[in-house]
Amino acid sequence: MFFHRQELQHQAKPDRPDAVYARKLQEILGGQYGEITIAMQYGFQAWNAHIPGKYRDLLYGIGAEEFGHVEMLATMIAQLLEKSPVGITEDAVQNDPVVAAIVGGTDVQHAIVAGAGARPVDSNGNPWSGAYVTASGNLLADFTANATGEMQGRLQAARLFHMTDDAGVRSLLSFLIARDTMHQNQWLAAVAELRDEGVEELPVPSNFPQSKENQDVNYTYINFSDGEAAAEGSWASGPAPDGKGEFSYQAEPSPGVPMPPPTHPDSRFYGTTELPNLVEKAAGAVQDGLKKE
Amino acid sequence: MFFHRQELQHQAKPDRPDAVYARKLQEILGGQYGEITIAMQYGFQAWNAHIPGKYRDLLYGIGAEEFGHVEMLATMIAQLLEKSPVGITEDAVQNDPVVAAIVGGTDVQHAIVAGAGARPVDSNGNPWSGAYVTASGNLLADFTANATGEMQGRLQAARLFHMTDDAGVRSLLSFLIARDTMHQNQWLAAVAELRDEGVEELPVPSNFPQSKENQDVNYTYINFSDGEAAAEGSWASGPAPDGKGEFSYQAEPSPGVPMPPPTHPDSRFYGTTELPNLVEKAAGAVQDGLKKE
Amino acid sequence: MFFHRQELQHQAKPDRPDAVYARKLQEILGGQYGEITIAMQYGFQAWNAHIPGKYRDLLYGIGAEEFGHVEMLATMIAQLLEKSPVGITEDAVQNDPVVAAIVGGTDVQHAIVAGAGARPVDSNGNPWSGAYVTASGNLLADFTANATGEMQGRLQAARLFHMTDDAGVRSLLSFLIARDTMHQNQWLAAVAELRDEGVEELPVPSNFPQSKENQDVNYTYINFSDGEAAAEGSWASGPAPDGKGEFSYQAEPSPGVPMPPPTHPDSRFYGTTELPNLVEKAAGAVQDGLKKE
Amino acid sequence: MFFHRQELQHQAKPDRPDAVYARKLQEILGGQYGEITIAMQYGFQAWNAHIPGKYRDLLYGIGAEEFGHVEMLATMIAQLLEKSPVGITEDAVQNDPVVAAIVGGTDVQHAIVAGAGARPVDSNGNPWSGAYVTASGNLLADFTANATGEMQGRLQAARLFHMTDDAGVRSLLSFLIARDTMHQNQWLAAVAELRDEGVEELPVPSNFPQSKENQDVNYTYINFSDGEAAAEGSWASGPAPDGKGEFSYQAEPSPGVPMPPPTHPDSRFYGTTELPNLVEKAAGAVQDGLKKE
Amino acid sequence: MFFHRQELQHQAKPDRPDAVYARKLQEILGGQYGEITIAMQYGFQAWNAHIPGKYRDLLYGIGAEEFGHVEMLATMIAQLLEKSPVGITEDAVQNDPVVAAIVGGTDVQHAIVAGAGARPVDSNGNPWSGAYVTASGNLLADFTANATGEMQGRLQAARLFHMTDDAGVRSLLSFLIARDTMHQNQWLAAVAELRDEGVEELPVPSNFPQSKENQDVNYTYINFSDGEAAAEGSWASGPAPDGKGEFSYQAEPSPGVPMPPPTHPDSRFYGTTELPNLVEKAAGAVQDGLKKE
Amino acid sequence: MFFHRQELQHQAKPDRPDAVYARKLQEILGGQYGEITIAMQYGFQAWNAHIPGKYRDLLYGIGAEEFGHVEMLATMIAQLLEKSPVGITEDAVQNDPVVAAIVGGTDVQHAIVAGAGARPVDSNGNPWSGAYVTASGNLLADFTANATGEMQGRLQAARLFHMTDDAGVRSLLSFLIARDTMHQNQWLAAVAELRDEGVEELPVPSNFPQSKENQDVNYTYINFSDGEAAAEGSWASGPAPDGKGEFSYQAEPSPGVPMPPPTHPDSRFYGTTELPNLVEKAAGAVQDGLKKE
Repeated sequence: MFFHRQELQHQAKPDRPDAVYARKLQEILGGQYGEITIAMQYGFQAWNAHIPGKYRDLLYGIGAEEFGHVEMLATMIAQLLEKSPVGITEDAVQNDPVVAAIVGGTDVQHAIVAGAGARPVDSNGNPWSGAYVTASGNLLADFTANATGEMQGRLQAARLFHMTDDAGVRSLLSFLIARDTMHQNQWLAAVAELRDEGVEELPVPSNFPQSKENQDVNYTYINFSDGEAAAEGSWASGPAPDGKGEFSYQAEPSPGVPMPPPTHPDSRFYGTTELPNLVEKAAGAVQDGLKKE
Repeated sequence: MFFHRQELQHQAKPDRPDAVYARKLQEILGGQYGEITIAMQYGFQAWNAHIPGKYRDLLYGIGAEEFGHVEMLATMIAQLLEKSPVGITEDAVQNDPVVAAIVGGTDVQHAIVAGAGARPVDSNGNPWSGAYVTASGNLLADFTANATGEMQGRLQAARLFHMTDDAGVRSLLSFLIARDTMHQNQWLAAVAELRDEGVEELPVPSNFPQSKENQDVNYTYINFSDGEAAAEGSWASGPAPDGKGEFSYQAEPSPGVPMPPPTHPDSRFYGTTELPNLVEKAAGAVQDGLKKE
Repeated sequence: MFFHRQELQHQAKPDRPDAVYARKLQEILGGQYGEITIAMQYGFQAWNAHIPGKYRDLLYGIGAEEFGHVEMLATMIAQLLEKSPVGITEDAVQNDPVVAAIVGGTDVQHAIVAGAGARPVDSNGNPWSGAYVTASGNLLADFTANATGEMQGRLQAARLFHMTDDAGVRSLLSFLIARDTMHQNQWLAAVAELRDEGVEELPVPSNFPQSKENQDVNYTYINFSDGEAAAEGSWASGPAPDGKGEFSYQAEPSPGVPMPPPTHPDSRFYGTTELPNLVEKAAGAVQDGLKKE
Repeated sequence: MFFHRQELQHQAKPDRPDAVYARKLQEILGGQYGEITIAMQYGFQAWNAHIPGKYRDLLYGIGAEEFGHVEMLATMIAQLLEKSPVGITEDAVQNDPVVAAIVGGTDVQHAIVAGAGARPVDSNGNPWSGAYVTASGNLLADFTANATGEMQGRLQAARLFHMTDDAGVRSLLSFLIARDTMHQNQWLAAVAELRDEGVEELPVPSNFPQSKENQDVNYTYINFSDGEAAAEGSWASGPAPDGKGEFSYQAEPSPGVPMPPPTHPDSRFYGTTELPNLVEKAAGAVQDGLKKE
Repeated sequence: MFFHRQELQHQAKPDRPDAVYARKLQEILGGQYGEITIAMQYGFQAWNAHIPGKYRDLLYGIGAEEFGHVEMLATMIAQLLEKSPVGITEDAVQNDPVVAAIVGGTDVQHAIVAGAGARPVDSNGNPWSGAYVTASGNLLADFTANATGEMQGRLQAARLFHMTDDAGVRSLLSFLIARDTMHQNQWLAAVAELRDEGVEELPVPSNFPQSKENQDVNYTYINFSDGEAAAEGSWASGPAPDGKGEFSYQAEPSPGVPMPPPTHPDSRFYGTTELPNLVEKAAGAVQDGLKKE
Repeated sequence: MFFHRQELQHQAKPDRPDAVYARKLQEILGGQYGEITIAMQYGFQAWNAHIPGKYRDLLYGIGAEEFGHVEMLATMIAQLLEKSPVGITEDAVQNDPVVAAIVGGTDVQHAIVAGAGARPVDSNGNPWSGAYVTASGNLLADFTANATGEMQGRLQAARLFHMTDDAGVRSLLSFLIARDTMHQNQWLAAVAELRDEGVEELPVPSNFPQSKENQDVNYTYINFSDGEAAAEGSWASGPAPDGKGEFSYQAEPSPGVPMPPPTHPDSRFYGTTELPNLVEKAAGAVQDGLKKE
């Protein structure tokens, strides 16, 4: 169960409206790595979890916080849009180049669709998609995905920090960036703890028997381009991070196998087939293929 | 530049057709973490890279391999579909429960749209989307995303391994799973190397000055649910993985701040506003707001 | 701010697993009118609201409840999937026609992607989309949209009720259907109250001056098909529900106006234009159009 | 069957081109509540209708009108784009701030993809989606959805009215807004008529036996937030609009039930499970789980 | 303007319900090349046309027919769904393997969302998308796209013909296939006529001055794979179809040019850059980059 | 297998950055007819091909080239973005109208998401979609689709040519346009060759027996609009391009057939049905319909 309190975790109040910036801020609300993604992802991971205890409590514990971040950003965006002009292109533009830029730089659906309100979309107006969420049931894979989400999220928030000098907006971003610092660290700590406790190991999934994977290529870097510098990396020699293999480097792929012959589906799919087949088709299709109907 | 050779890196030939399995295999071809995602992601990361050398060579070096994996899976799927029935529901079903299941379990677009061919979609028929790709320009964030991709990918391939007993399919999966083992390890090694070399640090992005983030909450676990077990985790006390802070635990959120007052956009957006405003609207809107036109 | 408690508003526990039904239940979790839509819609309407007080409190008051419904359904789906077979088509099918049906009728991403977990998608596997949300800032329009959402939602839940005889599932549906009854009534009451209080009137938006709309056609039913029975409806004569006009019926459209002449964009868009223009193109394009570059 | 006449129901001719406004106007052509949605929605409701007579004639009667509205808007947009500049950013901008704004504010696909033509997309360039259509077969639910569509549509058209002073555009909008007035009223009248005639009742669906819904919570407002003003609304006490229940108010949710225990799917899904299970996994998985293959 | 008559161009009445087939038939209603695409495509091409006369009349003349095809298919699908079972998986399945297959093979949204009605989606339930439409303003390009649409459409209808033995369904398909025959021929005739009249030429767009395209590679087949049979094709030697060049064959690509050096965006984007840059970053970022704020 | 070489087929280096143009160029990278579509389409057609030899070699031969075009465009876009401003709206705008336009005209996700890098999206930021790909297995249909793709692609590139005067960008476009010239010609030559060799004929699919299509309407132009000029076209009389029929012209549609009666699905779908049915519902539903549960 979720409960709501009409308070915000941190002040979300801009010094002045800025409709262009409101559009940009949509990215960390409704984008691929926006707060809706993060909140939903922690929710689905918790609801699909197979073990009670600290890992699931962790997911619940910050999932609700993230829904509050959604709310802070939506509230901020609505205020940034508060004075957004309704106006007419030429009028506006002839008076003021700032307005000219605004005319072009805003999300026009903010005005037409939401009446100066926030929307569940990214900074280009793409609707948020459930396809952004990762929740596989494997905690090592999912917590790494969570670390990824917090990294991309903090990166975007840091870029957005430089795109405004509004102290109110920056104060909120400063808060969100700090939380992303915490959450990056937290997921990396949890990943390490899963491994330390032996709950999960690398490679994911750790209890798929490695004997069943192809033993010739599971620790070999194979180079398919003509740059050679990758040979210098720690991924080209020495022990692998999973502690189960030794990296090697192969400068180019081994010879491959010939492609299998082309397929010959039922003639009633009307795919294009070779001439011998064509002759047969011309002759036999009527009886052979089509009388089946 | 890319070059093509009419060979496959590994045999991709099923022992027998299986149209239901063909549908399932679409997941690791055209799904969120399928090979198209992986190939495109490495490509865009390479094209957007800001440094030459081993990291970019790494991206190029395996990017082309991944396009070859796309090809192996597409070829395999076409063969699995080779004998897929065109047939009529009742006929098929009354004779054979296997066919009955097939009727229900296939991707019908395999037959109707592709004429028994592979498609750039996932196992539910959702078209592959460019929104699956992550390429931010920050290598620490992106390589972590790559590790995530290889983890989810290997997990899905392992599940698919158990959904068939076709030796030809399993041989290909065994190969792909092995490559995922390599690539998981490789990205984790590269992540470590970026940090060891001081190219990037945690938290991402590492050169956003931490002085600008809110210092009160950047290493604090704040619990928004009523489970208490998360307090036991390594993310609740002790040094954080970035080496820059000390975790603390807060059993519930601090009191928040009141929400800012509701916004009052231009009346020509026709949002619902409070009564005093309504009076003014009734009286003045005609002159006040609308004569602006 | 949102808070979470590790409890459910109502029991969400099936008597037995049923992977096919789990897929169907996804509709009211992640479909167009599923609980994610409802929860997000009330959230965005609240965050974009322009007046404090009872209407906004109403949105907050049930918005958090709806996030709890998301949780109940996700939890239920995970349990329905608990024993979902990993298995191989032919094996399964030859033994048991129920399994045969399951093979075809499940959401295969439940297994491959989520490892037997719920996902933010509808019953055909389409990811939930932010485009489902309506939040315009006009409460009369939005509360009517909310009533619509609760009607479609209750309708779907009622259909789903008949698709199972699992007492545990039915108990949850019975609870959700009851809440939909409440919420349908509630929004219709709120719509009436907005009108009674004079906060909003019909037609939406009520303070757009009707003098600016075309007075010839604003209360006329115009028939564009050849069925005549619509003339019998209350929308064809008598007073309109907004109390501002009298319906009339027009048996067929008035003669229209001729279409405007085709457009002639810049020749550098390479649209196909008429012959006189072609001559000019042949002659003059090089100088006329292209030297502009 | 549909027939076409090369006439428009109303003049659709702008006084002058305005490529920025052309983009905005796309919203009511190809957006969530644009004319394509409305036309398709009435079409599908008619084709899926279960009764002949006035309600279906109503759907047919205005469905064709709405396809004509699609045409009027597309024609208008093409003309607004007629003189849209092909040009080069810097050139254009240095001469004229209006052009500067246009460069930013247009839909660039209007130029690149359509050669100065209209497109089936919204004002942010999102393609129109079949997911916008509602057609459930239940006329009370669907006509309420139709009223919603006409409300949101009129609201957007009214906003767009204020974003231009072009008399030709305003004349068309004035016509469309008037038709929306008619259609809002019409659907509300039809909703009332369905109820008056006893064809349908509230709550939707009316013949799902209310005895099967949970009787404890079907007329109770339950408050999940900390605002108390919703207790003052007509939805918190008194008779419900469906005439079948009496509203009551509950200041906070009743205690919930404990969450069900986490699920334990087949180990071959490789979800993370608890330690006892892990031990078993370590020991038995090879025999227990994997020999099943 | 569009007008509707409550008749169908051809009988659309199945001999018996078939919910599985109803799902398949959705492909040619709401798929990439379904009738909605075709109808909308001809509409947008007409509305964006730059010349009056026979070509535009052609678009209008069959556009309205295609909306009628949408209607015939929707009506057919609703009837195919008429007896679709509501039922419960196990019950249904244990009695009847046909029902078992149906349980798996239907579009479950047909039942849950549409109450046994047609929907604007394809055979996998993907909503129809405006992105399927092609309308560029260049008639040679667009009429070729139309021929493509009619080819893919007829191909899918032919495949669907073999997936049923219902005489009523086959009668409708036989009609639609015949119209596709006409429309394929018609667009190819119109393409030829555009060229014969000199309205448009190849290559599209014909009045982009070929002097501005790279003269070294505009008629050369360059082979990027290792198959050599393409050298035998008519595209490898002899005159090109546009009558303006002579094909030649190049067995492998010419040496390329080196890639440009990696980019160095503003440091406030936090991309990963090389070490010298890193040093500068460490030292100077605070002053250099960040004081800009 | 694919191999990569760190070279470009042609120089891809702009003379100067231009973030607005970078956005526009995304269209031919990640749009409906962009290079990703083309590369993937040739790939899937090859992988699904049913005959070895020249046609399949053709697909492989240029498929890899097209992946190289993806790379050239991505590289170009990254460079065009190199100096894209991070900046703050008002500051930027007050100094420089060019910057004002840039603020509005850029793809803001280029900055926020990709850190000044290319993305797999179109010029409006819509993610590339697998739904753009056509690969049916019928080569005549697919090669016509390929010709369509190259026509639309060249058209867009030609428009983009006029939207910049940057010599480096134009040099790349000049190269790509030349390749499109080749590829248009090539597919049209291949289409002719398929027909000359008798591998495929018109109409597609050529071996669906025409006796099974409705013989009354397969070569008749039927006019559904009121323009009469289409009667003058070569599609209205004379031999059809497939050599199998003679065109005729019908000035208006023949009378249609009455619509089938409305459907009556199971009452548990809660669709609205007519009154007699209602009475029965009132009376019998409880026993009749609902006791089924």
